[in-house]
Amino acid sequence: MKKFMIFLFLGITTLSYAQTADEAMIRKIYDEALEKGESYEMLRQLTKNIGGRLSGSPEAAAAVEWSRQTMIDYGFDNVFLQEVMVPHWVRGKKEIARIVNSKKLGTQSVNVVALGNSVGTGPKGAVGKIIEVQDFQELASLGREKIEGKIVFFNRPLDAKLMDTFRAYGGASNQRGSGPSEASKYGAIGVVVRSLSSFLDDVPHTGSTNYQPNTTPIPAVAISTNDADLLSGLMKDDENLDFYFETHSEMLADVLSYNVVGEITGSEFPDEIIVVGGHLDSWDIGEGAHDDGAGCVQSIEILRIMKAMGYKPKRTIRAVMFMNEENGLRGGRKYADLAKSNNEKHIAAMESDRGGFLPIGFGMSGTKAQLEKFMDWKSLFAPFGIYQFKNGGGGGDIRALGTQGVPTIGFIPDSQRYFKYHHTGIDTFEQVNQRELEMGAAAMAAVIYLIDKYGL
Amino acid sequence: MKKFMIFLFLGITTLSYAQTADEAMIRKIYDEALEKGESYEMLRQLTKNIGGRLSGSPEAAAAVEWSRQTMIDYGFDNVFLQEVMVPHWVRGKKEIARIVNSKKLGTQSVNVVALGNSVGTGPKGAVGKIIEVQDFQELASLGREKIEGKIVFFNRPLDAKLMDTFRAYGGASNQRGSGPSEASKYGAIGVVVRSLSSFLDDVPHTGSTNYQPNTTPIPAVAISTNDADLLSGLMKDDENLDFYFETHSEMLADVLSYNVVGEITGSEFPDEIIVVGGHLDSWDIGEGAHDDGAGCVQSIEILRIMKAMGYKPKRTIRAVMFMNEENGLRGGRKYADLAKSNNEKHIAAMESDRGGFLPIGFGMSGTKAQLEKFMDWKSLFAPFGIYQFKNGGGGGDIRALGTQGVPTIGFIPDSQRYFKYHHTGIDTFEQVNQRELEMGAAAMAAVIYLIDKYGL
Repeated sequence: MKKFMIFLFLGITTLSYAQTADEAMIRKIYDEALEKGESYEMLRQLTKNIGGRLSGSPEAAAAVEWSRQTMIDYGFDNVFLQEVMVPHWVRGKKEIARIVNSKKLGTQSVNVVALGNSVGTGPKGAVGKIIEVQDFQELASLGREKIEGKIVFFNRPLDAKLMDTFRAYGGASNQRGSGPSEASKYGAIGVVVRSLSSFLDDVPHTGSTNYQPNTTPIPAVAISTNDADLLSGLMKDDENLDFYFETHSEMLADVLSYNVVGEITGSEFPDEIIVVGGHLDSWDIGEGAHDDGAGCVQSIEILRIMKAMGYKPKRTIRAVMFMNEENGLRGGRKYADLAKSNNEKHIAAMESDRGGFLPIGFGMSGTKAQLEKFMDWKSLFAPFGIYQFKNGGGGGDIRALGTQGVPTIGFIPDSQRYFKYHHTGIDTFEQVNQRELEMGAAAMAAVIYLIDKYGL
Repeated sequence: MKKFMIFLFLGITTLSYAQTADEAMIRKIYDEALEKGESYEMLRQLTKNIGGRLSGSPEAAAAVEWSRQTMIDYGFDNVFLQEVMVPHWVRGKKEIARIVNSKKLGTQSVNVVALGNSVGTGPKGAVGKIIEVQDFQELASLGREKIEGKIVFFNRPLDAKLMDTFRAYGGASNQRGSGPSEASKYGAIGVVVRSLSSFLDDVPHTGSTNYQPNTTPIPAVAISTNDADLLSGLMKDDENLDFYFETHSEMLADVLSYNVVGEITGSEFPDEIIVVGGHLDSWDIGEGAHDDGAGCVQSIEILRIMKAMGYKPKRTIRAVMFMNEENGLRGGRKYADLAKSNNEKHIAAMESDRGGFLPIGFGMSGTKAQLEKFMDWKSLFAPFGIYQFKNGGGGGDIRALGTQGVPTIGFIPDSQRYFKYHHTGIDTFEQVNQRELEMGAAAMAAVIYLIDKYGL
């Protein structure tokens, strides 16, 4: 009994000591991020000096060079590029759209943007009667008879009642992703999609659409939520109302681009790799500040914090700027392919692709044992307002690693504001708050530190 | 034993039923706020149609009339005004400030605003050598010999390491509140205070200073954090550097103004009053959107939600727009005085005066029994991301009620962004996010509902 008590005592002491050491370390990580953080200045450079960075664009190439050079300047142990061929979609001349022949308003311009990957109408535009539907079921029930030759207007809003706005987004996003293909099956000549926004305003939201192989690609635009409501209202009892839109987008030949990787080599287990990343490409119409400049600079900042603190990781920590998340996911897939063919051992992958907002938690997909370990860390984050450690998490760029069995972790910031800026012209540096961005970097650095120390 | 089991069973059933009914009610409150909320439109009217509303100004009078009319239009049972005499400080012509005779820059304009309640320099301005101090201790150690005839520059920043930015603010705010009086004791001719901001930028933050009765009032301005750093840097090894500033502010005679009160009369206990409020006055240089238009419209929205849901409170629920929180607290004190002289029974008072940001919790000051009751409600709010129910809370406007023994509750939104906008020209409608504002109103309405149902 006495022996047991002593063991128990030692056990508790060791546990308390480790807990206290981890608390102190995490506190130091936050102090470095909040007092001497450089993520915000990095984001300023990426968004203001480079701007929107669609795959295949000169800006995307500039962003590759900028992030490579930034990580070299920080003195990371290895900085290298991974070649990846990416789609090269161009928007071309600014889109035009008008409600025509409205009983009430006559001709009325509305705010639209072409969907990513979509074919253009060219200078002749597309014009026709509008037919409004809420979902694919309603589309099917109308059938070819009612749809052929018309422009289909998908107008299902995000569900405002859902606290997690990503769930609301998920519940509406098939209209954009598959709407044009679905409408094309019934002979539609074009598609207008209500912007995937949580707010009523005049800002249209782009994002990629995917043409299914056996359908005729038809032009497609997203319309601002205010204009979607306007259009829906004007259409009622107005048989003469037409819609006109003009887009000049086209898909060009694939272009050579790169994932950018920077790493600090592990001191004990250099072959065990922990990845943290964001995607370097963004839509062209804004500055890609929240989506996903934030995730990129936070990933670099995590390694910078470790170096600045003199922390030497046992395992190799990699910051990865993935290319082409927005309209192809080629970079994420290429990274996983190379990891496999090079026999690299990835012990965890984390992604930040939900904006540079207030951190509230992390989600992880992994084995039961990994999840238990991960959940045990939750209490360490309570002093920092982080209260969600949940089962299930990752991100588009690390999904392919996940299917190889690597545990994936998604960084979760507060989601309330994200779908105001997502894929818009107002996703700019000014919309990112410095402290929120820094707290996100600190939270992620703390989790990476724990994985490095204890494995996963 | 059997009897006990039955009691236990009934007890659990009743408890579960109540819990489930409350869960359903709170869910309905959130749905109403998020799907049909009107707080954002109210805020647009208050900030865009009226704007900044300093006590005694025509805008403050317009805001009184606007909120009175708004609550009448919503059909609240009683809407009335409470007379209160308020200070009438005016800023006058825009402030000017320059660093003069700098070795490196010669003459350099900097961004300042006069502190609220401060005396002006008049057209002659104030000019002199600058002496930088971090706190009152340092000021005292320098003494009259070093300070007399000079301009004192209080340059202690907010502590970036603190997660709760209100604590950081509290740790720096005596420079603004008492700095001018303290400096005056040693013969200073003016004061420059580093803006109480969590961020480095060019935006100066105003706020009130309080001259102690036995000191000579001296002019005082707040300087932007960027310019504070510039000034501090340029002063080093530069004996010739002077500082010039010009303010045209003055304190006029007190003016008659009003608290605005709207109420829904209780169906069972009409004499038991639950108050929820914000302050209607704001600083003049912005639109007073976060501070505290948000709290005002949320308070009105809570009563609107109850009416829209057909909820008939047992107790009387009051929305109060307090006047003159910013530079006098006269409205809050008057409200408490009237409550006492009218023998009103207030069972709880809640205030929202920390901006229209993401709700994360509530703090309450009350008896042990009241606190236990309050803490029991915490789990009901977990689905909505609210995780902080803590001991201690209130607000400036309900402090006087608190000293009468009324339990006071402070609404706690996330604090990371607040001290970017607080008391500035950029505290505008555009900086308030609709969903965050609505979620705050819903969270407060839910707590008010629980107090109404169960008492406190």
